[in-house]
Amino acid sequence: MPNISIEGPIIEDVDKKRILVQELTDAATKAYSLPRETIVVLIKENSPENVGVAGKLIIDRK
Amino acid sequence: MPNISIEGPIIEDVDKKRILVQELTDAATKAYSLPRETIVVLIKENSPENVGVAGKLIIDRK
Amino acid sequence: MPNISIEGPIIEDVDKKRILVQELTDAATKAYSLPRETIVVLIKENSPENVGVAGKLIIDRK
Amino acid sequence: MPNISIEGPIIEDVDKKRILVQELTDAATKAYSLPRETIVVLIKENSPENVGVAGKLIIDRK
Amino acid sequence: MPNISIEGPIIEDVDKKRILVQELTDAATKAYSLPRETIVVLIKENSPENVGVAGKLIIDRK
Amino acid sequence: MPNISIEGPIIEDVDKKRILVQELTDAATKAYSLPRETIVVLIKENSPENVGVAGKLIIDRK
Repeated sequence: MPNISIEGPIIEDVDKKRILVQELTDAATKAYSLPRETIVVLIKENSPENVGVAGKLIIDRK
Repeated sequence: MPNISIEGPIIEDVDKKRILVQELTDAATKAYSLPRETIVVLIKENSPENVGVAGKLIIDRK
Repeated sequence: MPNISIEGPIIEDVDKKRILVQELTDAATKAYSLPRETIVVLIKENSPENVGVAGKLIIDRK
Repeated sequence: MPNISIEGPIIEDVDKKRILVQELTDAATKAYSLPRETIVVLIKENSPENVGVAGKLIIDRK
Repeated sequence: MPNISIEGPIIEDVDKKRILVQELTDAATKAYSLPRETIVVLIKENSPENVGVAGKLIIDRK
Repeated sequence: MPNISIEGPIIEDVDKKRILVQELTDAATKAYSLPRETIVVLIKENSPENVGVAGKLIIDRK
């Protein structure tokens, strides 16, 4: 701990995940003054069929 | 925000997801008096091998 | 299970919570064809100091 | 409720899941003095590409 | 990681929390074959006004 | 969505929360190429009595 969980759409590019994890960890390390090794990030990828915004599935909004 | 996350078994029928998202959003809009566009729903589908009830996996209960 | 978790601002009026829980449960019962007794709802209330939208805390947006 | 959610790496061996769910349920039953039937466990498996520790993805740490 | 999050009612007795955390950690260590130091447990306490079962708040079921 | 949820100890200084939310949002905006307005951050503060690391509550580790 601290644990960061990020719920979003699918990220195809692994390099984007690399940078995301690095930057989220940078932000948390600063906020909590805790060693970098304690910060865990979980990237949660959601299919557009399983996300609703404003009462509509993403697959129906596009 | 508000964000609704619903953890359940797999839903095969997309139309059931459509209605679920619509009705959860209706309920939240009323409770919070916030615009529909702010409500996000995440449907989380769990394999019966990864859910335990009363100490037993779902695959072993059926 | 299914478990519904709803993250939102504080709801002052308990009656609004009563109706919210009832309506979320109605929606889930229909979607999963599972007995009402299996549906659990958690209302998660967040202080405006702990929520950020578009990079700003809610306390700074008003 | 109570609901236990465990976020970890992938567990290949279903028997390990069986024991895990049983033991987590044992612990919760004791702590809450609630009937075993009320305890739900969700095992959440995360790909090493989606987990970061100390700012690095698991796939880059090995 | 692994991270265990347990959503339940309020636990008044800190000793029960001590034992709960110890036993959940024992179970996870065994399942994942990971060092004890990596296991994090979060006990989440919910007011009976914020939990619904079968469409009713806990405060209305007792 | 995307929604970032960060579970950690209590943060006394609101300015640290301000910066944390800003930086987490910066990172997510870049990763997802989505408008800043869609990113929601929830800061979850946990009492040291409710967090266990390596099988011990934080209050017993200090």
